[in-house]
Amino acid sequence: MKIKHDECTISQDMYYLMERLFPICRSITGDGVRITLNILKELIPEIAINEVPSGTQCFDWTVPDEWNIKDAYIITPTGEKIADFKVSNLHVVNYSEPVDRSLTLEELNKHLYSLPELPHAIPYVTSYYYRRWGFCLTDQQRKQLQPGNYRVYIDSALKAGSLTYGELVIPGETREEIFLSTYVCHPSMANNELSGPVVTTFLALWLMSLPKRRYTYRIVFIPETIGSIVYLSQHHKELKQNVYAGFNITCVGDQQTFSYLPSRQGNTISDRVARHVLKHIFPNYLEYTFRDRGSDERQYCSPGIDLPMASVMRSKYGTYPEYHTSLDNLNFVTPEGLSGSYTALLHCLQCLEFNQILHTQCYGEPQLGKRGLYPTIGVRNPQKRLRDMMDVLAYSDGNHDLLSIAEKIETPLWELITLVNTLKEHNLLNENKYHNSTMTVMNEYV
Amino acid sequence: MKIKHDECTISQDMYYLMERLFPICRSITGDGVRITLNILKELIPEIAINEVPSGTQCFDWTVPDEWNIKDAYIITPTGEKIADFKVSNLHVVNYSEPVDRSLTLEELNKHLYSLPELPHAIPYVTSYYYRRWGFCLTDQQRKQLQPGNYRVYIDSALKAGSLTYGELVIPGETREEIFLSTYVCHPSMANNELSGPVVTTFLALWLMSLPKRRYTYRIVFIPETIGSIVYLSQHHKELKQNVYAGFNITCVGDQQTFSYLPSRQGNTISDRVARHVLKHIFPNYLEYTFRDRGSDERQYCSPGIDLPMASVMRSKYGTYPEYHTSLDNLNFVTPEGLSGSYTALLHCLQCLEFNQILHTQCYGEPQLGKRGLYPTIGVRNPQKRLRDMMDVLAYSDGNHDLLSIAEKIETPLWELITLVNTLKEHNLLNENKYHNSTMTVMNEYV
Amino acid sequence: MKIKHDECTISQDMYYLMERLFPICRSITGDGVRITLNILKELIPEIAINEVPSGTQCFDWTVPDEWNIKDAYIITPTGEKIADFKVSNLHVVNYSEPVDRSLTLEELNKHLYSLPELPHAIPYVTSYYYRRWGFCLTDQQRKQLQPGNYRVYIDSALKAGSLTYGELVIPGETREEIFLSTYVCHPSMANNELSGPVVTTFLALWLMSLPKRRYTYRIVFIPETIGSIVYLSQHHKELKQNVYAGFNITCVGDQQTFSYLPSRQGNTISDRVARHVLKHIFPNYLEYTFRDRGSDERQYCSPGIDLPMASVMRSKYGTYPEYHTSLDNLNFVTPEGLSGSYTALLHCLQCLEFNQILHTQCYGEPQLGKRGLYPTIGVRNPQKRLRDMMDVLAYSDGNHDLLSIAEKIETPLWELITLVNTLKEHNLLNENKYHNSTMTVMNEYV
Repeated sequence: MKIKHDECTISQDMYYLMERLFPICRSITGDGVRITLNILKELIPEIAINEVPSGTQCFDWTVPDEWNIKDAYIITPTGEKIADFKVSNLHVVNYSEPVDRSLTLEELNKHLYSLPELPHAIPYVTSYYYRRWGFCLTDQQRKQLQPGNYRVYIDSALKAGSLTYGELVIPGETREEIFLSTYVCHPSMANNELSGPVVTTFLALWLMSLPKRRYTYRIVFIPETIGSIVYLSQHHKELKQNVYAGFNITCVGDQQTFSYLPSRQGNTISDRVARHVLKHIFPNYLEYTFRDRGSDERQYCSPGIDLPMASVMRSKYGTYPEYHTSLDNLNFVTPEGLSGSYTALLHCLQCLEFNQILHTQCYGEPQLGKRGLYPTIGVRNPQKRLRDMMDVLAYSDGNHDLLSIAEKIETPLWELITLVNTLKEHNLLNENKYHNSTMTVMNEYV
Repeated sequence: MKIKHDECTISQDMYYLMERLFPICRSITGDGVRITLNILKELIPEIAINEVPSGTQCFDWTVPDEWNIKDAYIITPTGEKIADFKVSNLHVVNYSEPVDRSLTLEELNKHLYSLPELPHAIPYVTSYYYRRWGFCLTDQQRKQLQPGNYRVYIDSALKAGSLTYGELVIPGETREEIFLSTYVCHPSMANNELSGPVVTTFLALWLMSLPKRRYTYRIVFIPETIGSIVYLSQHHKELKQNVYAGFNITCVGDQQTFSYLPSRQGNTISDRVARHVLKHIFPNYLEYTFRDRGSDERQYCSPGIDLPMASVMRSKYGTYPEYHTSLDNLNFVTPEGLSGSYTALLHCLQCLEFNQILHTQCYGEPQLGKRGLYPTIGVRNPQKRLRDMMDVLAYSDGNHDLLSIAEKIETPLWELITLVNTLKEHNLLNENKYHNSTMTVMNEYV
Repeated sequence: MKIKHDECTISQDMYYLMERLFPICRSITGDGVRITLNILKELIPEIAINEVPSGTQCFDWTVPDEWNIKDAYIITPTGEKIADFKVSNLHVVNYSEPVDRSLTLEELNKHLYSLPELPHAIPYVTSYYYRRWGFCLTDQQRKQLQPGNYRVYIDSALKAGSLTYGELVIPGETREEIFLSTYVCHPSMANNELSGPVVTTFLALWLMSLPKRRYTYRIVFIPETIGSIVYLSQHHKELKQNVYAGFNITCVGDQQTFSYLPSRQGNTISDRVARHVLKHIFPNYLEYTFRDRGSDERQYCSPGIDLPMASVMRSKYGTYPEYHTSLDNLNFVTPEGLSGSYTALLHCLQCLEFNQILHTQCYGEPQLGKRGLYPTIGVRNPQKRLRDMMDVLAYSDGNHDLLSIAEKIETPLWELITLVNTLKEHNLLNENKYHNSTMTVMNEYV
């Protein structure tokens, strides 16, 4: 597969990648994850693929046995093959142990999962840490099952192996890092989750296309929960030391809404940037609280870890009916949905890259007229553009970062880039090169 | 009198005690206070009764002469005895000097007090620091008085004696104190005031029934204003050093509403606890400001004293029509009203006792499943109870006390006690044993 | 001219002064400013008049050549004299270079300014820093101009000279300063601007009439923008060191509304005082943000200067239709408008002068009764006046300045002066004589 970096085609390219990844049966371990990461590696060869052996202790957790599956189905009393893994990998409870036996409908029912409230949907069910087997099917299909003798067959393997994850580091001018995390453990579902790794991959391509970056970017493609715990157990010291901002990228594929889930602290630079961007591109975005969390911010923001990780999402996990069912499919996600999320997150990264603490370089207002930046005739109503310029100069006092100035003057930060660069060229503004911990202090001014 | 500690009968027991205390003519000094305190001592022999001599200098004040009264009445021109002290001790202006003489209706009227707006009520009038005499009667009765010769008789005594108060210290594991103050100077009125000493007595009995207490409890039964000034003048240094939280207990007898009056600082631990409890047990409670104060918080919260004293009340003094009249009687106060206040204040003390700063004992979320605290199968909607558990773990970072966590997750602190104890038993939570000054710092997180 | 200090006539006296100053053609330099300042000097001989030579470097600016004008007009093809400077000095673009030549209507039109949206108004147009010439006239008149040969004549001079400003220092008990700035550069307009120097002159007369002042007052009468830049470039170090509060006095002549524009910091003592006064005298006042600025606070509040300068105004520049046209005249401004502004600013100065940090001089409430400050009989409802007294005592803890107490108890500070003085006479309150930097800290309590 060849993906063009032309922005016009980026939404289609993301959707094609999603279509290619969709059929793979992923889990928290196993070949599904490896195949997925290798496809991403075709686009970005710099992605490193790491393996962590089963049994490895990670904080309070242990890497489980690796799970792989080749086939699974049920044969009905009339000989029909149903709940066929090859038709949908959601038909098998994820991490099912192998089984091959006959049983009655009554016995079978203890191993079946369906959703009466969504009779046409196959639910997504997992049992990572307790050995069982099971099948998922639509409630409509389940109701048609007749008493009799059923054969259940799951050709899976659960044995010592490893947990697989991908890692990409894109160097910048400083060692301070922007951390992006997304997960590759969900089987055939589209918004939650394939949209995350797809959009993240294209953000990485954009970052790599830049001539330079202020920050170093660390991007991980991991299984959810156990993957972030594994990654943190290996890297939390350097993460705590280096990560300046970060986003957990999930549920970024549909086009129904935008939403935001804050970090645990709630007002980190990541939160400020996320709110700033969403306010300007989708004013009616939904703001959740940290109590509504459910993805890897549970680990990244846990006590003692405390990374500044926020989530910019479309329809959030757990809030839309299609969530964790076969209805979260390639119809639910759209090229426009993916591309809107890509743009939103790209603006977040632009805000982080361009945010800075500026100092006006003279006392009093500078005489802009003599530099051709101000009209030479005094009339009744100065223009909005001039007012923005005067406001940037007035608030560049070393106590406001550019983000807080953009907030004050109700203008997207990315629309101030040209203006700021012009004022810098005229030596009217200068950047305070203190490191970011100083900028973090500025939160109080927002 | 024998009072059972059975909670089912506690509301009736409080009401019986109120009925027994109601007829006594109390004032800021004199035998009425002593009789009252001795009745409380029957229930709690540990109460110490202290006497402070008349003439003792206390800050800007002086303990006045002691007042005692045996009888008082008016004889009308037709020989009828009215305004009879033995019928209602409100008939005499409290602290009246003795008198025995004849006078005209016109002269008498200068010494009469009634309430045209409440024609059936006898008002409660005092003149502690200026020698006068007077009678209070219903406005209806006053209007029937005919011209003629009246005889007024007050058999009172005003002479050097002492001011009496009761004090009870219930030791705890630390020297830090919870300070409860209530007043015993009002004659026959029920909500303001007899409800205070009655409910306080039963809270003391509950505290004494506990196997142990984190805090030491200091409880005073004093006359209002002069009593708190006397007590402060004797103990303010140790109070300032030891008191961690406190409540002024007044107007806790009726069942019309709940209300809250903050400390002067407004956000002490006492205030936080009072708001937390009332929000959960009576969401429509009335919140007053410190400017609406009128009881002993006037002294406890004065500049340089600054004790963290808040008031959890039913109908606040000064706000209900029956206030400071004969209508604030045993009908206005109910067993249910007393018991609701008892429960509210008991929850306040529980919150103080159980509040603590907790630390989650691992990085990342603990694996609750292997401890039987989490379901082994992943489905779409985790339960509220599980979410509370995860939230307590997520916020136990050493920067939030349990009270602020309870506020965040909108659950009464006392409903988290079992959950916290379970997590402690599994070594997932540990208490930070820093003393309370640390906890006070946490106010900012609320 | 003789002006009486009698307050009853002050509104008329201000209006007379305005009438006298109105016809003078002022600009940022030139004799118009000198004549104006000399008239003010008749009232206050202590005003010093300073000259700053053309070419002087001031921060990023240079004092321009001095501009003077004797005459200007246009002769129409029919020989009619229009746009006559002697009829209205607004007819000439302020700072026009000299011209005397003939041209066609088409050529002339490039030098004409009118307002189609206000067809009867002559606009006010300036070109201080770019050499051009031009005429301003009503749009109605402009539309009547017929094609043909026009003669334009401007008898002006632009040459090295100086910029003129007035300065008045009224000494106080401390070196800390209240800084008042107003501008004298506008030609015949009334609200913006002549009202500023007129009201400021009378505030200065009031200040000089006081037996003593806590603060030193520094008052400047300057041309706008370049004048404040000149003044700051000469005095910013001492201003930064000494100025405790300040007001930029502009647009204080009409009676349509009151408005307020904050300092850049937004919560300085000047801002607190301005809001306090306006809330009490005109509750519906308009509150602008610093982004709406347009006068000399642009310089006084610039980064690195950061003076606490707020603006208490009537109809703000730029917001009313008559602004910067011939309609901002002596009908738009009224004696009542001037006098209301005078009172508002006078209250601001009173608040600054009387604001102080007080300490209650005893523990607990003082016994006011024995001092005759409290009724000797206890009844149901204490008076509002008594409650204010108790509240002032309760909050005089050294952490609240009197202004924050006045805010808390919702009473104008100037109505607490007698009460505070009474409590001081009884030695119940004492002033904390720390200097103002301490008081500034108190902002957080408001």
